[in-house]
Amino acid sequence: MSRGVLTRSGPAALEIEDVQREIDRMLAERGARATAYGAHFARLWAAAAECITGGKLLRPRLLIGTFEGAADGDGGPAADRGAVLRVAAAVELLHYAFLLHDDVIDRDLLRRGRPNLIGTVLRDRDAAAFEGASAGGTPPDPADLHWASTSGILMGDLLLAAVHQVFARERLPEPMRLRLLDLLDHAITESVAGEHLDVALSHGVAPSELASVLDMSRLKTATYTFELPLRAGAVLAGASAETEEAIARLGRHLGVAFQLQDDLLSTFGRAEEHGKDPYSDLREGKETAIIAYARLTEAWPEIARGFGSPTLTAAQGARMRDRLIDCGAHRFLRSLIEEEIGACAELLAAPGAGIPPALAAYIGRLIESIEERRL
Amino acid sequence: MSRGVLTRSGPAALEIEDVQREIDRMLAERGARATAYGAHFARLWAAAAECITGGKLLRPRLLIGTFEGAADGDGGPAADRGAVLRVAAAVELLHYAFLLHDDVIDRDLLRRGRPNLIGTVLRDRDAAAFEGASAGGTPPDPADLHWASTSGILMGDLLLAAVHQVFARERLPEPMRLRLLDLLDHAITESVAGEHLDVALSHGVAPSELASVLDMSRLKTATYTFELPLRAGAVLAGASAETEEAIARLGRHLGVAFQLQDDLLSTFGRAEEHGKDPYSDLREGKETAIIAYARLTEAWPEIARGFGSPTLTAAQGARMRDRLIDCGAHRFLRSLIEEEIGACAELLAAPGAGIPPALAAYIGRLIESIEERRL
Repeated sequence: MSRGVLTRSGPAALEIEDVQREIDRMLAERGARATAYGAHFARLWAAAAECITGGKLLRPRLLIGTFEGAADGDGGPAADRGAVLRVAAAVELLHYAFLLHDDVIDRDLLRRGRPNLIGTVLRDRDAAAFEGASAGGTPPDPADLHWASTSGILMGDLLLAAVHQVFARERLPEPMRLRLLDLLDHAITESVAGEHLDVALSHGVAPSELASVLDMSRLKTATYTFELPLRAGAVLAGASAETEEAIARLGRHLGVAFQLQDDLLSTFGRAEEHGKDPYSDLREGKETAIIAYARLTEAWPEIARGFGSPTLTAAQGARMRDRLIDCGAHRFLRSLIEEEIGACAELLAAPGAGIPPALAAYIGRLIESIEERRL
Repeated sequence: MSRGVLTRSGPAALEIEDVQREIDRMLAERGARATAYGAHFARLWAAAAECITGGKLLRPRLLIGTFEGAADGDGGPAADRGAVLRVAAAVELLHYAFLLHDDVIDRDLLRRGRPNLIGTVLRDRDAAAFEGASAGGTPPDPADLHWASTSGILMGDLLLAAVHQVFARERLPEPMRLRLLDLLDHAITESVAGEHLDVALSHGVAPSELASVLDMSRLKTATYTFELPLRAGAVLAGASAETEEAIARLGRHLGVAFQLQDDLLSTFGRAEEHGKDPYSDLREGKETAIIAYARLTEAWPEIARGFGSPTLTAAQGARMRDRLIDCGAHRFLRSLIEEEIGACAELLAAPGAGIPPALAAYIGRLIESIEERRL
């Protein structure tokens, strides 16, 4: 997404580069303090900073865009620029804390083709073993892997603590600070509940029903990716409780639409566009809404044969993709996305919705971005 | 430790039962909210509450004892009773968050003979497999173990977040709130650095030198067990920065003495008194100061043969214990503990130490409790 879509221009505009600088500053400060605890601990912070660099900063962009749109409303006084940048940076660090613990739980060494923190720590120990393991070859030495995943658990804890420190320390009017803390608490509860459900589904502890899979996807990703930054932007802009509630509803619909679009793209999109392994979701047996729908159709027995098979070939993957289209799973996902987008449009058009015009225009551009898969 | 040692009597005295009620209330409130996310997530909170019940509440006792002693000083106004109870409860939840992630990292299913959260989740899945695995027999099904340790990671995250919410939301004068947040940040950084170093030592990533082992033990346990509750108690009592700093130094010495005493007790104490498996530290190959000292002596080659062996018999364990006494490791630990205690006595006796008399008397009783192994 181009920067202009999400932030206004002008001398006082909040720039995403400033959020990046704020993230860099937080990591550098904590990294510098870590040197007091020896070379290994300092290296852990440095490795985390390497892995965190280069993200799309979607969540801070959403927070800033909403803040700027909502600041034109008729609410109370807005927070100052510095507080907005720091909270936006913290929301990005929360994303990394979640990714890190997810990667420990999923035993992943890579994220979007690059070594994640666990992969980086493993590579530091034994570069050849990392290369072999990340290419799906020989498993690494269990002691090295344990050291690497321990590092992932501990760095996730440190980032989670750092996020809370930002929310807790901002010099904001007390009601605003407490509302932000409520949002953070809610987002963490939902994300953790979603991850718990995801693992329950993958182990068959919870049955893979369509409703559960949709719940999981909303809880695990949509809440902290959309509802949290949108609501936090509105609260920081001094929006009224009604506007915040309207934004929260919009955020939930947008978040689910975004997540379903991401599932569609991973399974049916062209690899050169989204940059992921084209059949990784199918190979890993990821329980998406696509799969939950397909389970209800007659095509399932054939799809099930290759689903979750680590040795799935490109030809088998392509055939499975065709079956998922034939059985209606692709069409079904499109209709779910249209429903979510339709609900947003309805909320925006409702009289007295409490959405200031600049914010409504911003949400409209977000909807387009999701529809055109540009987020 | 009897309650009377740590809290004053009288109608307005803070009682440890009130902290327990506060912990129960926090867990019940979060458990009730968890039911919105399905039966498995609600069960996770219920299992956590079961595992948290029945602790000795050492850290809240220390916080309350220090608060009551320091409130007699000449500092500013103290926090109200409710805030002290909530922060004391949060410090206990922090302890459980650390224990949980430690148990995930160490792959432990039991804590002091009872199933920990991971063991409880595993037992819920397959009671027979849990019994077998916790008795050191057949390893459990990897998928069940993954589900259980995932639950441990996620509940640790939820508790860590809950602790921060308490510190962040208390309605305290801003400087007091920020000082408490500083303490929490410092305690988490040191505990995580200590755990990181512990795992580095156990994998040989860091060399097992005496200085590193002593650092590890101070960072991993002493800071959050003593320095955090003592300083937080002083801050909540409105103590001056000088008094807080004096308390911090005392807390570090007491914490190291307590931890070393605990290591001594685990290895040389009578099992019927401390309630642990008498040779578990030796069998697990735990890198304590005792072992780090023994490595420097001529007795090491013989001790090394059984150290870290899961099949260590009671007779071998008893022989190893004798060798550790002969080589001077026991005597060495005693002298380290005396040094720490001596440093405390010196700080207490120094003119202008900034310790109010009631607090000095309380610290004196704590020293006795550590020397007599009653903590």
